[in-house]
Amino acid sequence: MTDVEWIAIDWGTSNLRVWGMNANGRAVREATSTNGMNLLARDQFEDALMALVSTWLNGPTIAIACGMVGARQGWMEAPYSTVPCEPLGEGIVKVPTQDARLQMHILSGIKQTSPADVMRGEETQIAGFLALNKDWDGVICLPGTHTKWVHVSAGEVVSFQTLMTGELFGLISEQSVLAHSVTSEGWSDAAFEEGLSTAMSRPEALAARLFNIRASQLLEDTAQDTGRARLSGLLIGAELAATKPYWLGQNVAIVGSAPLASHYTTALRGQGVPVTETDPVAMTVAGLTAGYKKLKGIT
Amino acid sequence: MTDVEWIAIDWGTSNLRVWGMNANGRAVREATSTNGMNLLARDQFEDALMALVSTWLNGPTIAIACGMVGARQGWMEAPYSTVPCEPLGEGIVKVPTQDARLQMHILSGIKQTSPADVMRGEETQIAGFLALNKDWDGVICLPGTHTKWVHVSAGEVVSFQTLMTGELFGLISEQSVLAHSVTSEGWSDAAFEEGLSTAMSRPEALAARLFNIRASQLLEDTAQDTGRARLSGLLIGAELAATKPYWLGQNVAIVGSAPLASHYTTALRGQGVPVTETDPVAMTVAGLTAGYKKLKGIT
Repeated sequence: MTDVEWIAIDWGTSNLRVWGMNANGRAVREATSTNGMNLLARDQFEDALMALVSTWLNGPTIAIACGMVGARQGWMEAPYSTVPCEPLGEGIVKVPTQDARLQMHILSGIKQTSPADVMRGEETQIAGFLALNKDWDGVICLPGTHTKWVHVSAGEVVSFQTLMTGELFGLISEQSVLAHSVTSEGWSDAAFEEGLSTAMSRPEALAARLFNIRASQLLEDTAQDTGRARLSGLLIGAELAATKPYWLGQNVAIVGSAPLASHYTTALRGQGVPVTETDPVAMTVAGLTAGYKKLKGIT
Repeated sequence: MTDVEWIAIDWGTSNLRVWGMNANGRAVREATSTNGMNLLARDQFEDALMALVSTWLNGPTIAIACGMVGARQGWMEAPYSTVPCEPLGEGIVKVPTQDARLQMHILSGIKQTSPADVMRGEETQIAGFLALNKDWDGVICLPGTHTKWVHVSAGEVVSFQTLMTGELFGLISEQSVLAHSVTSEGWSDAAFEEGLSTAMSRPEALAARLFNIRASQLLEDTAQDTGRARLSGLLIGAELAATKPYWLGQNVAIVGSAPLASHYTTALRGQGVPVTETDPVAMTVAGLTAGYKKLKGIT
């Protein structure tokens, strides 16, 4: 016996996370694995999923996934919806399975034609945020490897923009010459603020500020904690300069995990922007729940 | 018998290059190895050098090196000169050797206190350029992994700035999500120009333009050659925006290798800047020759 009515799945590039949802919409089971989309061939997805959920199944069960599992290299391609559109667009793709108990579905991502941009997974978090915050208009910022800035109005995604800030931070702090001057942990609020204000006041000079971190450490023996926070401040400052048309004069909701989300909050509040922080996992589950209701025709 | 009067050495992080110079200042021998500074412990430098030059020695012979060999992790630290200073500063460090025939010397690098910056090796190319171009005033740009922009006046380095453009290009094109959208070879002049003008006209938006390269390729199947040239244009455009105070209204000499040097030339000429391209290896040898003359008291 199991009280799992349906299965919610967040299936990204490098992680798989599943929840068994009961009839009241509560997660009563949870499991994770590192079987991300990157590791799996097309015919391995079902086994990777069943390894986590098979004991939860008690007859035919709907499963709904979001994320890179729906990419061209994923289990099955779920074509993009095009902005402007509701975050879950029209697309819920049914995926054939070997095990008849599994009624597998994948939610579509969203694309924008000009400027060209794509998302997969974040649209579900946006749907979750809007399910919990009816009639909310403003800008949703989803910080991460590829941070998304999303303009939401009247329940639709109007436009969005992706910035590779998180990925650049990882590459520069771990693999460039700055790796010698940046710790993998540690923080300095003052150095973050300094990097932030430097990059925001003269964003065009960013490229000239990075090597400074190395040179300061060589010449002045600056602490490596300082280097890390300064680099983060410079890159987030450059991001805020680039996305000013998105956040200026708007409500901003941040869907992201600490500590990164709180750096964005600090930076935006410093610009006088009203910011709400929300839990990204709760938004994913709420968004998958919205997908489930849509599939079942529940409003 | 050998006609090698002294030995010129360019010893960088990952390569060692030596020339046997005759009494007329001509390179009559040449050899290279991959025994860069990164691979060697302090007590391995002499052997690495002698493996290339021992057959050239016919009695006590002066050897002069520039580059990372003089860093703290190198053979022996050659302290930085501080701007404003002549490119070869005051510092020629004598290095003790096992083999008495080798009279080893290392040229100092240059540092700048504010903003903090350092160079090792480029100062020798600058000295070479000035030896060949007496009374030249202007800005020398040395494109590479870490591009240097150097303001030179009245025979001195007045100030300089390092940009990590080359290293960022390598990391982003090979290791980020853009690697899927960028070839390792190939080029498109039109895509380079487009990236360049995008970054120069709105440098603050650079961070938002990178992911575009990936999204365009996903949605429009843009050629990977185009992605490579566009990324280069965006990063060089951001560099030119950051270094505008250096090049605006100046003579610029570029000391660098094709094809990178020619991309900088194209970009600067597009801004109406008069540009001279020079051969970086010739400048290194000329600079080491200037160091040799200085050591011998020849003017």
